[in-house]
Amino acid sequence: MRLEILPVPGIGHVTEGDDLAALIAGAAPWLRDGDVLVVTSKIVSKAEGRLVDVPADGPERLAERDRVLAGETARVVATRGATRIVQTHHGFVMASAGIDASNVDKTRLVLLPVDPDASARALRAALRDRFDLDVAVIVSDTMGRPWRNGLTDVALGVAGMPAIRDHRGEVDPYGNELHLTQMAVVDELAGAGELIKGKCDQVPVAVVRGYLDAARDDDEGARTLVRDASLDLFSLGTAEARAEGLRAAALLADGTGPAPADPAAVDRAIAAVAEVVAPGTVFTHVTDREVREGLAANAPDWPATATGLVLGAAPAPVDRADLVRFGADLQRLRIALAAEGVPSALLPPPAGTTASAMLAL
Amino acid sequence: MRLEILPVPGIGHVTEGDDLAALIAGAAPWLRDGDVLVVTSKIVSKAEGRLVDVPADGPERLAERDRVLAGETARVVATRGATRIVQTHHGFVMASAGIDASNVDKTRLVLLPVDPDASARALRAALRDRFDLDVAVIVSDTMGRPWRNGLTDVALGVAGMPAIRDHRGEVDPYGNELHLTQMAVVDELAGAGELIKGKCDQVPVAVVRGYLDAARDDDEGARTLVRDASLDLFSLGTAEARAEGLRAAALLADGTGPAPADPAAVDRAIAAVAEVVAPGTVFTHVTDREVREGLAANAPDWPATATGLVLGAAPAPVDRADLVRFGADLQRLRIALAAEGVPSALLPPPAGTTASAMLAL
Repeated sequence: MRLEILPVPGIGHVTEGDDLAALIAGAAPWLRDGDVLVVTSKIVSKAEGRLVDVPADGPERLAERDRVLAGETARVVATRGATRIVQTHHGFVMASAGIDASNVDKTRLVLLPVDPDASARALRAALRDRFDLDVAVIVSDTMGRPWRNGLTDVALGVAGMPAIRDHRGEVDPYGNELHLTQMAVVDELAGAGELIKGKCDQVPVAVVRGYLDAARDDDEGARTLVRDASLDLFSLGTAEARAEGLRAAALLADGTGPAPADPAAVDRAIAAVAEVVAPGTVFTHVTDREVREGLAANAPDWPATATGLVLGAAPAPVDRADLVRFGADLQRLRIALAAEGVPSALLPPPAGTTASAMLAL
Repeated sequence: MRLEILPVPGIGHVTEGDDLAALIAGAAPWLRDGDVLVVTSKIVSKAEGRLVDVPADGPERLAERDRVLAGETARVVATRGATRIVQTHHGFVMASAGIDASNVDKTRLVLLPVDPDASARALRAALRDRFDLDVAVIVSDTMGRPWRNGLTDVALGVAGMPAIRDHRGEVDPYGNELHLTQMAVVDELAGAGELIKGKCDQVPVAVVRGYLDAARDDDEGARTLVRDASLDLFSLGTAEARAEGLRAAALLADGTGPAPADPAAVDRAIAAVAEVVAPGTVFTHVTDREVREGLAANAPDWPATATGLVLGAAPAPVDRADLVRFGADLQRLRIALAAEGVPSALLPPPAGTTASAMLAL
């Protein structure tokens, strides 16, 4: 068993309306059934006319590029300096939505194909129907990734084979069942294709021979590789998520919730803010149930669902400015509680105590 | 030009102390100078004795596994449920620090090699010195990644070739200089090796032939692929970064900073909290320079570096509880300002006004 990776030279410049199937079949008359074609998305985009005119330079070019980027963007994921990592309408997370200014006139930008799986299916169908070639087609592009320097080619679209090779349920020689091993083989094939394309000049198509016994239609496409943002642990840039946390703190809701899973959470929150509140400020976690119920009974706004209580006392003697400062410090505690997963509600101080306010938890 | 990817079957089970160079040279007498060997890290780990004994099952196994994971962890990056994404001491960001329980006895766990670049260099040196083979060696492992489902094999270590192929400075046929294109070719080679390993049973080594004209020593190794967390836009999980933002809000420092880059930032922050503060609370951004300087002149604590001022008035008439509530709302505004990048300091109200407090910006 062996795989071969072959370049397809001689395709030349591709322009709108070009017949990619004819160009590829003409340049590689040696193609065989079962070959996997790795086709650089740029020539697919060009053939499909996914180009926009932009000024060759100057601020007008940048402004127009920003406008084009906004159109290709479903969601901004992270920004730093001029870098824009966005999620495209396809769901891909890529720098600049995959918009590319290389290998094209200075007055044009190349956008990703509208539906790379459909592009792959169309090319596969054309090669099968008009050239009697039953091959798989991968539409590939170059992407960066978190945590690792350097770029790799991955699959934007695929037809004629599944995107994933699923080893789940297989048992290794030691009797351990494999639980997690779903390999994104089309990404590995796209990367393998890049190895030969990168060694040649201007070769937009590579062929991987020997990987498939035969191509077969598969409805899933490379779309199945797109992880839903709600399931992704890294759906947002770190700085953006931190800022979201800050904004959430500013808008913190008033209200109680279920008792904290960890009884020490309240004391941890009090300890967390101890260094930053005004000297002499005292927060007391009232853990004695009888005391708590006595205080709550005298608080007209005490929520029926509350399960905990913190008393807060401003440093004495207090003037108006001290009470404002105390309120600010109490809000610090409420946010620290929220960071521990403990919601709270701010209430006036209980009658008959020296407290300045209390929190219902 | 073509690449070939060949499996190396017949290596069998590897155990501590095994001579990998002899095993590979024996199983693949057809190896040639310039071949790239893609060696699954697991057999490197096993040969190097990077195994720990654990109970075969039960809570003791989980506890011991957690202990081992903590030892392999430099930094926790993200957690959800039982999933732990951590940065290893090498700098790799991987689920469970790459600790693996497959293809090993149920009572052992396999850890990553201590220094995969050194492992690759040692194997390359042994093959050259003892078997007269001048090859490159990649130590590979399987990783998940953000945003895309499915796993791919990437390089943990490399010797005999650079990890990255740098196209920067090259000019395309349209005259555009390539700025970004540093390809992580060793990751693509590792993935290409996985394609053949995944199709065979228990084949831990693949050979990529035709990629290199000749192997050559390169000091960088795969370490160069590890992006420093401080440079990474996704150094922390989204939920973890949001929680960091909340904690940062609780500990918000008092103090002013340079004037905000965007003059509208202060008004945006005021607008952001308008819906959540007590009805009747008024925050006034004092933009008239003369008015601001007049108020500041009467404030003994006014910071010399301050460039902006917000007056805050609690809803009248105010009692002590209202002032506490106002202070909490003022803290909301301070946090919203921080989210806009505008630091602030809380000060007593200026003399001769009806304000309850003011913020120096």
